[in-house]
Amino acid sequence: MNIPTVIRRFQQALLLFVVMACFSAAAQTNDSVFIRRLADEILLRSSAYENLRVLTKQIGPRLAGSSGMVKAEQWGAAALQRAGADCTWMQQCMVPHWVRGGQDRARAVVNEKSISLDVVALGNSIGTGPNELVASVMEVRSFEELQQRQQEAKGKIVFYNYPFNATLVRTFQAYGDASKFRGQGPSQAARYGALGVVVRSMSHSTDNHPHTGATRYDSLYNKIPAVAIGLQDADRLSGYIAQGNVQVGLRTLGQFLPDTIGHNVIGELRGTEFPEEIITVGGHLDSWDNCEGAHDDGAGCVQTIEILRAFKALGYAPKRTIRFVLFANEENGLRGGSKYAEEAKRKSEKHVFALESDAGGFTPRGFGFTATDAQFQKIAQWQPLIAPYGCSEFSKGGGGADIGPLNRSFNTPLAGLQPDSQRYFDYHHARSDVFEAVNKRELELGAVNMAALIYLIDRYGL
Amino acid sequence: MNIPTVIRRFQQALLLFVVMACFSAAAQTNDSVFIRRLADEILLRSSAYENLRVLTKQIGPRLAGSSGMVKAEQWGAAALQRAGADCTWMQQCMVPHWVRGGQDRARAVVNEKSISLDVVALGNSIGTGPNELVASVMEVRSFEELQQRQQEAKGKIVFYNYPFNATLVRTFQAYGDASKFRGQGPSQAARYGALGVVVRSMSHSTDNHPHTGATRYDSLYNKIPAVAIGLQDADRLSGYIAQGNVQVGLRTLGQFLPDTIGHNVIGELRGTEFPEEIITVGGHLDSWDNCEGAHDDGAGCVQTIEILRAFKALGYAPKRTIRFVLFANEENGLRGGSKYAEEAKRKSEKHVFALESDAGGFTPRGFGFTATDAQFQKIAQWQPLIAPYGCSEFSKGGGGADIGPLNRSFNTPLAGLQPDSQRYFDYHHARSDVFEAVNKRELELGAVNMAALIYLIDRYGL
Repeated sequence: MNIPTVIRRFQQALLLFVVMACFSAAAQTNDSVFIRRLADEILLRSSAYENLRVLTKQIGPRLAGSSGMVKAEQWGAAALQRAGADCTWMQQCMVPHWVRGGQDRARAVVNEKSISLDVVALGNSIGTGPNELVASVMEVRSFEELQQRQQEAKGKIVFYNYPFNATLVRTFQAYGDASKFRGQGPSQAARYGALGVVVRSMSHSTDNHPHTGATRYDSLYNKIPAVAIGLQDADRLSGYIAQGNVQVGLRTLGQFLPDTIGHNVIGELRGTEFPEEIITVGGHLDSWDNCEGAHDDGAGCVQTIEILRAFKALGYAPKRTIRFVLFANEENGLRGGSKYAEEAKRKSEKHVFALESDAGGFTPRGFGFTATDAQFQKIAQWQPLIAPYGCSEFSKGGGGADIGPLNRSFNTPLAGLQPDSQRYFDYHHARSDVFEAVNKRELELGAVNMAALIYLIDRYGL
Repeated sequence: MNIPTVIRRFQQALLLFVVMACFSAAAQTNDSVFIRRLADEILLRSSAYENLRVLTKQIGPRLAGSSGMVKAEQWGAAALQRAGADCTWMQQCMVPHWVRGGQDRARAVVNEKSISLDVVALGNSIGTGPNELVASVMEVRSFEELQQRQQEAKGKIVFYNYPFNATLVRTFQAYGDASKFRGQGPSQAARYGALGVVVRSMSHSTDNHPHTGATRYDSLYNKIPAVAIGLQDADRLSGYIAQGNVQVGLRTLGQFLPDTIGHNVIGELRGTEFPEEIITVGGHLDSWDNCEGAHDDGAGCVQTIEILRAFKALGYAPKRTIRFVLFANEENGLRGGSKYAEEAKRKSEKHVFALESDAGGFTPRGFGFTATDAQFQKIAQWQPLIAPYGCSEFSKGGGGADIGPLNRSFNTPLAGLQPDSQRYFDYHHARSDVFEAVNKRELELGAVNMAALIYLIDRYGL
């Protein structure tokens, strides 16, 4: 830390002091008492963990368009009602309907020996069809390397073997760094005549589960099949390639069926003083088809429902209208989040704040805010009220995919719950994202911190 | 937060500003660069996870006096040597040798039906012998209740069914609150003529595994057998009791064999400028016999070894002497920690600082310090250097059981790594404390934060 930084810190401390001195001590005492009651209610009587068990074990995978989606929507509406919503409704939107079509298969052919590889087709990807696609494989570590060796790519399967960066303590930075190969990799390879793509999974897990996620084809190039490969098999495949010519065989059956009807599932507590001012809190109800979607984002859904339950259990009548939203189709289309903002615009609603939990049901550490400086200063004064429950780190920047459109339409300030991120990419979009990977208390503490923030926003506005 | 608190915070900020301005900016830059290199070394090339696999899966349980203890000591010395210690030695101490003697068994007899209960004998407890102890059971929630109902206790088995407090966000507070029933419960029951004790496990896990731990008999009263019971079975047993008279049958075979020889296993990096000033960092090598001791405290041991490995890999020559210590017998005697301080006294060593990791291999959140105000102020200025790696919370109070005697003998300032505690008591002293319960990155980040603190203490003293 250099001296100008130290001086800036001091000025910040001074500013915080002034702000805090203005914020009534009595108000803070009442608030801390109520937040303590919220925490006790959730830590002693939460339904979040049991709700998550039902959502993951009885319903399971729930990709947009699937029968799991329909079951999850019905469950969600009933759960919001049970938790005490004044009213509950389904907000219809058309959603994409991508299907995997069958078991993905891959093998490496090394010295005429066939070695099976653990892969999963990327979401939204086209399939090879029933006949296996077999081609020589070309390993690259970057788009630059692919461009330099573009003449070699024609007729090949391109293997993006870019390692997830373990030195980034905030793992979402590693995800931001590596996910371009999943998103743009297939089209970048097709551009140079490649026939298929294998992408190293975006994870630093110690197992071999492959991690799916949406790819985006560029309309300029052919759509080619693409799979993610588990980390151990990625290293194995790389080892074979280092020893000589290797062929890879892929068989995937992905395809889009016609768009179908999905829904945002919404419960509401009507505001008593400013009912026209709407606060949104939510997670997304859809999950990938290869997992139970426990952390992504069953956790965010059951936390959202739990906040409603806790408010009702304590008889809290909010000043502003609070909407508890289980969004549709975050994973491969974002149609739910877009629809929610569209309808808000059509009805000229006033959206004053939105919070999303979509980073896993892990122990809470902070919130990230997309807000003006003045709004952030106001929020920052509440940090001492929330920190005892885990979220001590308040930072600028953050929100959630589903609430992003609200900010773009209305400049609505946003927040995203930021749980500890070390384990998130062990499970993200992999078959290991199951109920058993979620810890009950960590899940509940996330709900406690979210409930505290929503309560303070409701009381004091922004 | 009230106004005096706000003013105090402001004064603290002002003091921190002054301290920081005095701390050379150039030094902080060099330090942050070196700490980044330590982090990269550990996050990319750590041997901690692989060491933990060997310690837990190849050696396994290693209670003082057991053959596992002997194997673990040999492994530890070799691991410290491999990691690059200038010298490695075994510091001998006599350790207690408690053995379980066989499978603990318990059952409830309800309406002449026998229902088996999942229990584990408390460490250091006396056994029933081969014949089952059968008696009516008396459930209490507190020592006060036991005292009030003392006439009922005679000839009974007392069941302490005190719930672990879920509303305490810092779970070690819940442990502090509940563990008296394990420690004093048997003697308190014997005082009123009880024949045996069942204690509700100190945990808020969702499974039924019983959690052991040491009990302490008061020499005034009879020693009676005592077991811990899993949470689900505790609730079940309580339900039976609510419906009528219930008998419990216990069979445990615990006993003490004669004390035997154990060792603290020590590796050292010799200081280049102040070799007589000793910094200690460690964990404890022993574990309970019913588990792999992965979090408790395999994690602390492999983190300790990893810090040594990383220092050597980066060619760091410390100013002060750094001792990497795998302590003996923390769980049921603390003979290792006591011996270490005793020997230090005998040799008139100068112990300037000690750090212990014995709260699990979870994601790091902070350090707790037992230090003077002046020492704590000096340490606090380093918080911005360490916080990016997870330990943002520096607080007063903390250390570790094994390093406690150093503080009592020399006023040596102490620190304890404080990882996130939400999952700790799910595993603590239960059969679920296995390698698979430890996350590789969380374990490694603990080592990163510890290494950074040891580095700063070495460079600047206290």
